[in-house]
Amino acid sequence: MPDPGKSARSSPVISSRENRWLKEFRVALRGGLPTESGAVGVEGVRLTEEALSSGCRIEAVLFSESGRRHHARLAPYLDREEIAFPILYTTGRLFEGIADTEHPQGIAALVEPREFSFDDILRPSLSGAAPLLIVLAGVQDPGNVGTMLRTAAAFGATAAITSASGQSGTASPFSPKALRASAGAALHIPILAGPALPILLAQLHASKIRTLATSSHSDASALAPWDVDWREPIALLIGNEGAGLPEEIERSTSARVRIPISGGIESLNAAAAAAVLFYESSRQRNSL
Amino acid sequence: MPDPGKSARSSPVISSRENRWLKEFRVALRGGLPTESGAVGVEGVRLTEEALSSGCRIEAVLFSESGRRHHARLAPYLDREEIAFPILYTTGRLFEGIADTEHPQGIAALVEPREFSFDDILRPSLSGAAPLLIVLAGVQDPGNVGTMLRTAAAFGATAAITSASGQSGTASPFSPKALRASAGAALHIPILAGPALPILLAQLHASKIRTLATSSHSDASALAPWDVDWREPIALLIGNEGAGLPEEIERSTSARVRIPISGGIESLNAAAAAAVLFYESSRQRNSL
Repeated sequence: MPDPGKSARSSPVISSRENRWLKEFRVALRGGLPTESGAVGVEGVRLTEEALSSGCRIEAVLFSESGRRHHARLAPYLDREEIAFPILYTTGRLFEGIADTEHPQGIAALVEPREFSFDDILRPSLSGAAPLLIVLAGVQDPGNVGTMLRTAAAFGATAAITSASGQSGTASPFSPKALRASAGAALHIPILAGPALPILLAQLHASKIRTLATSSHSDASALAPWDVDWREPIALLIGNEGAGLPEEIERSTSARVRIPISGGIESLNAAAAAAVLFYESSRQRNSL
Repeated sequence: MPDPGKSARSSPVISSRENRWLKEFRVALRGGLPTESGAVGVEGVRLTEEALSSGCRIEAVLFSESGRRHHARLAPYLDREEIAFPILYTTGRLFEGIADTEHPQGIAALVEPREFSFDDILRPSLSGAAPLLIVLAGVQDPGNVGTMLRTAAAFGATAAITSASGQSGTASPFSPKALRASAGAALHIPILAGPALPILLAQLHASKIRTLATSSHSDASALAPWDVDWREPIALLIGNEGAGLPEEIERSTSARVRIPISGGIESLNAAAAAAVLFYESSRQRNSL
């Protein structure tokens, strides 16, 4: 099928060989699963731009006919001789069949999140700020995982760790829903996935990182956010939305922090609580 | 159909007359619409308890067979001679047909939110604290509306105002989704619904309430949250999730406030931004 708008590098996805790419995109976007090589799918011009600017390896970029209007915005990343990934084109109808969103923008990418070791995430930041880690321990909702990564990164967190806690695992930061809620932050902030929580606590303490448990129990020994010295190296642990952190984990941390609330409200939404604590850390690190 | 467990006041909903109640509950819960008398539906033991303790007029309470196990927790509100509403009973199957949740707890209520005037919401609070108002201007997502009301109430906001802004209205705080996200706060905090934004600003200024616009534009004149004196009477305006507040509204407020962020993140999630600002107000009002 002739395609008058295609550039030298473009390849309309119609042959059975190129059909493979559409399947990869469908699995990643609609299925929410990583491809065989470990790439995840991102959709829309903003997230694709975040992926291209993140420094992560790109496996492929896909435009629909109408999505080509976004090419100009992405040109700094795409119109280069040395790019090592294919740029593919398909029809609007086929794109809709693989997209996870209701009104797709016609632009998507497959991107391989970088993998980080424990030593990587403690590497000094360019700004010289002390490590400030967010540890998601049993946060089950992908939207909460994404929102918390976005907020933590916005307030200067230097890395993130995802871990299971008690009965519940933490949702993948790289699922389409989590990536959207993170506004791309999940591709920028270094993330260490999967250490067991007790081992992680021991490693953090051995590395002189203070561990702070967010606590929703009334607990006279818990610190108010403004009583924590956030300029120290700190790892903030956030537990499951309903159950919080397991008690034995709370007891193993350096301290517990509790946001004082009133008004007959029992607790804050988990993402709101994380926003408040990272704001307080940023306020102290920047203004004191 | 005989019902061995029913009390003197209970009435198994089977007759065509009592069928009217099931319809009312279905419209309110599954349909998300107010009943003819303006009552809204709440579901689950926690929200029903919030409704019963709110002081709002209750139109009816409905239990399924399995929901009766929650009766003991609600007994302080239900087992009284002077209650002015019917307590109804139905089968688990019928309850599932009217509930909006996937795994209903078998307990629901119809509750009439109170209506407040502009003067009402400025009435001095029992604590003697200066008015702290949250103004939702074009917040479209019911989950965001509920979460923001919950957070604002938790940090001592004295009242809320919902208003349309530019193209977009604010979602009702009393829809099932907003009520759930608010964890019942929407029934406790006084809410004034619907004033036009320019008129509201004039009224607030005439009442010596300082109006603060949350701004996401880089704006050298915007204050950092810690540079605002939150002990004054303040109304904090929060705009649409995507578009923010209309520019002419931002220009008409007493000041603009902007949360400093970095890390390559363009903006915070709207509910996270609101949490941060109300936390800062609470920190100042309680700790300075």
